Amino acid sequence: MTAKANAVVAQSGGPTAVINASVCGVVQQALESGRVGKVFGAINGILGVLREEIFDIGAEGKRKVNELRRCPAAAFGSCRYKLGSLDENRADYERILEVFSAHEIRYFFYAGGNDSMDTCDKVNRLAAETGYELTCMGVPKTIDNDLAYTDHCPGYGSVAKYVATCAMEAGKDTEALYTTDTCTILEVMGRNAGWIAAATGLAARTPEDAPHLIYLPESAFTFEKFVRDVKEVHQRLGRVFIAVGEGIKDEKGQYVTADSGSFSKDSFGHQQLGGVADMLKVVIEKEVGIKARWNKLGTNQRSAMHFASQTDVDEAWLCGATAVRQALAGVNGKMVTLQRQDGDHYECTTGLAELRDVANGEKKVPPEYIHPAGNHITEAMKDYVRPLVQGQVRVKIAADGLPVYVRFGRRPVPPRCATYM
Amino acid sequence: MTAKANAVVAQSGGPTAVINASVCGVVQQALESGRVGKVFGAINGILGVLREEIFDIGAEGKRKVNELRRCPAAAFGSCRYKLGSLDENRADYERILEVFSAHEIRYFFYAGGNDSMDTCDKVNRLAAETGYELTCMGVPKTIDNDLAYTDHCPGYGSVAKYVATCAMEAGKDTEALYTTDTCTILEVMGRNAGWIAAATGLAARTPEDAPHLIYLPESAFTFEKFVRDVKEVHQRLGRVFIAVGEGIKDEKGQYVTADSGSFSKDSFGHQQLGGVADMLKVVIEKEVGIKARWNKLGTNQRSAMHFASQTDVDEAWLCGATAVRQALAGVNGKMVTLQRQDGDHYECTTGLAELRDVANGEKKVPPEYIHPAGNHITEAMKDYVRPLVQGQVRVKIAADGLPVYVRFGRRPVPPRCATYM
Repeated sequence: MTAKANAVVAQSGGPTAVINASVCGVVQQALESGRVGKVFGAINGILGVLREEIFDIGAEGKRKVNELRRCPAAAFGSCRYKLGSLDENRADYERILEVFSAHEIRYFFYAGGNDSMDTCDKVNRLAAETGYELTCMGVPKTIDNDLAYTDHCPGYGSVAKYVATCAMEAGKDTEALYTTDTCTILEVMGRNAGWIAAATGLAARTPEDAPHLIYLPESAFTFEKFVRDVKEVHQRLGRVFIAVGEGIKDEKGQYVTADSGSFSKDSFGHQQLGGVADMLKVVIEKEVGIKARWNKLGTNQRSAMHFASQTDVDEAWLCGATAVRQALAGVNGKMVTLQRQDGDHYECTTGLAELRDVANGEKKVPPEYIHPAGNHITEAMKDYVRPLVQGQVRVKIAADGLPVYVRFGRRPVPPRCATYM
Repeated sequence: MTAKANAVVAQSGGPTAVINASVCGVVQQALESGRVGKVFGAINGILGVLREEIFDIGAEGKRKVNELRRCPAAAFGSCRYKLGSLDENRADYERILEVFSAHEIRYFFYAGGNDSMDTCDKVNRLAAETGYELTCMGVPKTIDNDLAYTDHCPGYGSVAKYVATCAMEAGKDTEALYTTDTCTILEVMGRNAGWIAAATGLAARTPEDAPHLIYLPESAFTFEKFVRDVKEVHQRLGRVFIAVGEGIKDEKGQYVTADSGSFSKDSFGHQQLGGVADMLKVVIEKEVGIKARWNKLGTNQRSAMHFASQTDVDEAWLCGATAVRQALAGVNGKMVTLQRQDGDHYECTTGLAELRDVANGEKKVPPEYIHPAGNHITEAMKDYVRPLVQGQVRVKIAADGLPVYVRFGRRPVPPRCATYM
């Protein structure tokens, strides 16, 4: 491998508040190492590689690169394109190596969730098989916090801080206006894992505080139990604040609600969810007889840089920088992990996991973090999430009173390969 | 009137980020004047007066009172209880005076919207009619910004700052993931006036920026035009970000969507709205053929103290303090207004309006603030809202990484009247 091989970094899947901080770590570490030539950004994740739409990140300037530390979403563009197996879709993988080779790319850094780690692993395997010298490193990213082998995922700390704050603030609203709007439901993301819903529980410092009830996909949901829960809280406090993960499931493991429109499945075949809060509202009004309303934060929860966790930003940057350091030290085919150290004081270091292990894993909220009644969290869950939400990002504010978030020019390099796709 | 007559302050209607700052202004000004005895808080607005549930705010301590400057929702409790006309419901108004008299209350400060100003006015009229010496002052409050006779309403600047930031951040998310999630709809509050939806337009610094389309109740909505708008933006940018007020109406003035459940009307007879974003999503997916998703901030938009406007907080406090100063100077039956001064530099002073005029008025977004195509705002609207979102409130953060918001003990004073209601 030449000393000045190029690198490419790509962002994948649902954006977060800190995935840009991770690529900032990759870019800054790579450029400062003096051992990498150009660092290319793939426009819209792996699609940018397949389409040979890559740009020279360094050309955007150091100041702009540094601004990635406090810019939400994915400045290079993301995608949900799934490549499938090597056997079924070898052409896509070969195309990736063709583009890498054409631009002398020997390092591939992919920030994403388990689907991205799967892609990263398969690209790596084909490179080994075909003798193309390549180092592939994964950088963890997901608000869902469902990646295995890592204590937590960059992106989770910020969404946790934001949804807990939203639960606290909307809970104050319900506490103020309970004589009319007696019940509020806060619907948060989380298709299979309830980490985000669980994080709202941090706001419940006392039994009076919202949320009073929390429902996660990990606990089988029954309407009978739900109605009993709501009645109990209403009787006790005169108001009810509920946090619910979009992916709650019944005793048979079926989603409690599901859209049935023409776009009901995304391109990975995941079922698209929506409307669980609206459905619970109807149940509450009918079965408990109190007025209910609901908030659905949607993509605002994963892009809320204006109140993101500084710890999350720092750890995201660290994961990106560590991926580069390890790659330059000869490590290959791994994802950087975050390892919480034992002891009273929170301390987090990095580790490494096999890409293919992460690709096949999924980490759900463990039983010891869920209240035995299945309607709230435990102190152990609070202890887990508390260190992750420490510190507030101070965004840059323009004269118009709103945040300033960087936008990259992303001028694609001249193509060297034939058109594909 | 004795020099040491007591005062009562009450909060009404939907809470805001800064209605507590307004009552903070009332309480601090009243206690510091040396001319008011006790300042009582009515628990849950006018309901607290009717039920004789009032508490001594001063007994909670100066530090706690000062914390009201950065606590969202309504710390004394709010309500949506409408008293109706004096003729029809004289008993309620007489009861109010009975409770006032029993506790030597000669000052009534009511923070709320036009329904509250109506209540405040009628209490004042009955007091005059019956010879009960009383001063009634209104303090403006509404996120909807729809009160007449005031340049803007405390509460609006904070919701404007927050929804514009949310549009910017979720817009970045859509820009990142447009290859899958091509269109995002942000549904915001605003039953009849589109001020909140209009404020999101501040985020659109360039034509690339979200929101690309904004729909207000003031402009007749047609599906044909809407579909054309979405197609045009999609063709131009490959993505579409839409901000919509919950109360958009068709050419006949009918709400474009309306719930039909048993709780479809609130206790003031207002139609309860919901689901406009969900409906637009279906239209877009069917008629434009792109995937759409939506966020509904709900009560989180009016309680987002974690990124509230410092200008709004300061002006809210000023309105409360001014109500007291004017009352002590002999003014009666007025609501404090905010008067924007002419000139390049934003400067705002207070004025006064008749309670009954405010009660009967409603201020909608004027045509010159709405783009002629009815799908965005003008520069004039940006100039209007920009000064109102200046400065960020710094909330107090606890060791758990989340905000600290004060909760009042609200221990009711011993009753002196018979039970009522």
